[in-house]
Amino acid sequence: MTSSNAFERMFGFARRDVTLGNWREQPFNGWAFQNVGEMVRSARISAREGNLEAAPVDLGDLLGETLDIGGQKETVAAFLDRSSTDALTVMKKGRFVGDWFSPSMKPDARHIIFSISKSLTAILAGSLEGEGKLDPNAPVTDYVPEVAGSVYANATVRHVLDMTVSLDFEEAYLDPESLFARYRRATMWNPGGGEESLREFLAALQQLDEPHGKAFRYRSPNSDLLGIIVERASGQRYANLMSDRLWKPLGAKRDAFVTVDKEGSARAAGGVSVAVRDLARVGEMMRQGGTAEGGRIVPQAWVEDTIHGGDAEAWQRGTMTNLFANGSYRNKWYQSANASEAYCGIGIHGQWLYVDPKAEVVIAKMSSQALPVDDPLDLDNVAFFEGLCARV
Amino acid sequence: MTSSNAFERMFGFARRDVTLGNWREQPFNGWAFQNVGEMVRSARISAREGNLEAAPVDLGDLLGETLDIGGQKETVAAFLDRSSTDALTVMKKGRFVGDWFSPSMKPDARHIIFSISKSLTAILAGSLEGEGKLDPNAPVTDYVPEVAGSVYANATVRHVLDMTVSLDFEEAYLDPESLFARYRRATMWNPGGGEESLREFLAALQQLDEPHGKAFRYRSPNSDLLGIIVERASGQRYANLMSDRLWKPLGAKRDAFVTVDKEGSARAAGGVSVAVRDLARVGEMMRQGGTAEGGRIVPQAWVEDTIHGGDAEAWQRGTMTNLFANGSYRNKWYQSANASEAYCGIGIHGQWLYVDPKAEVVIAKMSSQALPVDDPLDLDNVAFFEGLCARV
Repeated sequence: MTSSNAFERMFGFARRDVTLGNWREQPFNGWAFQNVGEMVRSARISAREGNLEAAPVDLGDLLGETLDIGGQKETVAAFLDRSSTDALTVMKKGRFVGDWFSPSMKPDARHIIFSISKSLTAILAGSLEGEGKLDPNAPVTDYVPEVAGSVYANATVRHVLDMTVSLDFEEAYLDPESLFARYRRATMWNPGGGEESLREFLAALQQLDEPHGKAFRYRSPNSDLLGIIVERASGQRYANLMSDRLWKPLGAKRDAFVTVDKEGSARAAGGVSVAVRDLARVGEMMRQGGTAEGGRIVPQAWVEDTIHGGDAEAWQRGTMTNLFANGSYRNKWYQSANASEAYCGIGIHGQWLYVDPKAEVVIAKMSSQALPVDDPLDLDNVAFFEGLCARV
Repeated sequence: MTSSNAFERMFGFARRDVTLGNWREQPFNGWAFQNVGEMVRSARISAREGNLEAAPVDLGDLLGETLDIGGQKETVAAFLDRSSTDALTVMKKGRFVGDWFSPSMKPDARHIIFSISKSLTAILAGSLEGEGKLDPNAPVTDYVPEVAGSVYANATVRHVLDMTVSLDFEEAYLDPESLFARYRRATMWNPGGGEESLREFLAALQQLDEPHGKAFRYRSPNSDLLGIIVERASGQRYANLMSDRLWKPLGAKRDAFVTVDKEGSARAAGGVSVAVRDLARVGEMMRQGGTAEGGRIVPQAWVEDTIHGGDAEAWQRGTMTNLFANGSYRNKWYQSANASEAYCGIGIHGQWLYVDPKAEVVIAKMSSQALPVDDPLDLDNVAFFEGLCARV
């Protein structure tokens, strides 16, 4: 009487095959990235209730169009497949003009956005800054005194926001013995978690032999610390703060979620899961200079500064010039400094929130790419977005 | 610059004080029971989208009314407080006539309902039975062959549904060294979980020296097994099955959640969290003979059997005659056999879904009582419901 199993038919593996040890690897990430709450304890970020999302708009003929990606001709459909896309949403001039979902992702699925979580966390900081509740030039220890014995002792919130903390930490995504692995356990993302809290881990980090503020050093723990900073500055927990200051005024249609550690600290650097259209709405809010249907979310000056205020010299001292040769990074958003002047949030395994202000296009792309970091595919993604912006 | 903290002002403790070791104890359960996803990994049970819940209806003068509870006069307000109530919703003839929330619970909170989860799981079984996809008289091993070496080898689904499995297992809620503690770890509800899966634990359980079908023996693992049985019978995962067969047709307004183990098996015996009005809707559906706004959910005959088909002799051989002297238990619902002929689902720490068919009243009560099992308070709860039914 045992029926065949809908899950196994859809994904090609059994649910029980997905573990805390493999959930970010293919093929398991094709399911797990949409169901992170089953892997890691999570807090809910409430949307305003009773908001019905409109039906998806078919990408239509666009799927068959040929783009120039990395010197090769490739159709939109072929690239979506090659880049392990789970969902894509395109907005033009504030309207949803196309949605695409893989057979295994439903429009209401909440997909993890990894480091685009950082860009959302920074929006909370911008909102608090706009009300005078957070001073980016203040020492981190004004908000989080318990990191006084760490690298953050002499860092400012500004250094944290712009990833110019001189932090002795490598993003060794694939090395199980690294400090990074200890970090993964503290966040409860890997087996063996729950001994050390994220906060305790952050308080133990140390400085390189170099001052803060000089080089762009992409280090995720900074952004988790920013999550704690905005909690302390506001007196609210991260999920509630996100709900009140971003998700509800944004007009997000579906609750979001964020993973938490043993103490309830949010994985502000990478643990947020959202519906794809709601992610696009964040980009549209930025494109609108900080406003959405519920009013102003961040000051226009903050958006301007985020888009154009990055330190080009710090970027050149960093390791991502391969992606954006003349780019910059400000308030956890990337400025491509390409001809488009597009800016974006980027997450591992192929998460993108791409805003092209000239084309008036916002693209949200959620993926389950095999590798956390894949430099050639990142460049292809940018070329894909540029091609798409020219055609919608 | 560190502001005072909204969480600590509300609950009187810090979020970080709540651990996997204490989340079900007072005062921590006053928060944790509404935020189980932060304690235990959970799957989402989708409601139909875009369904706005109406605003709560004030209990009004009812709060000040005096009821006769356990031989004492007590106001509704006083009893709600004494029984650590988080939320109460009362329906009369299908209409919401009163809602009450503690200061620390919002109307949209999803509160764990503990063993009322069993009653919901049985509804899924009833729905599948109605379509001929599940035979209650079939051996359990027809659906879950891997329990062939366990107590369930010669048990039927009927025994599982009615808690007449002769299972060698005590519900020792407070003993950390018991088989029950091993069970708690398998469900990921206690520290040290994740080694053994719920399914593996169930397959290891053994039989008492007594046949099945004779005595009502309340043993939660039976209901977790029922969760696996309905998955196998339907070919769907528990959360999806609950969404499709109950939550959406019921007209539930808010997503529910269920905790899962390392393999993704749902805690069908106790891990479901729902909004209080949605819980009341389940009772109303039963009162309506199995239908709700989305049509028929279970056959009317199944509801009749659930309400009136329990084995009174098996009940007398059980240990709950103190609560309902002439009661019975069928398909994971209790028949009080009091003058009211009220039937109910009951969960530890004070969760109740109480249906009085004569008064045409449904009451859902969510609580964070100090003790998991509190016999005198259970009797007081029943007296409270009887008093309330007479007054609304």
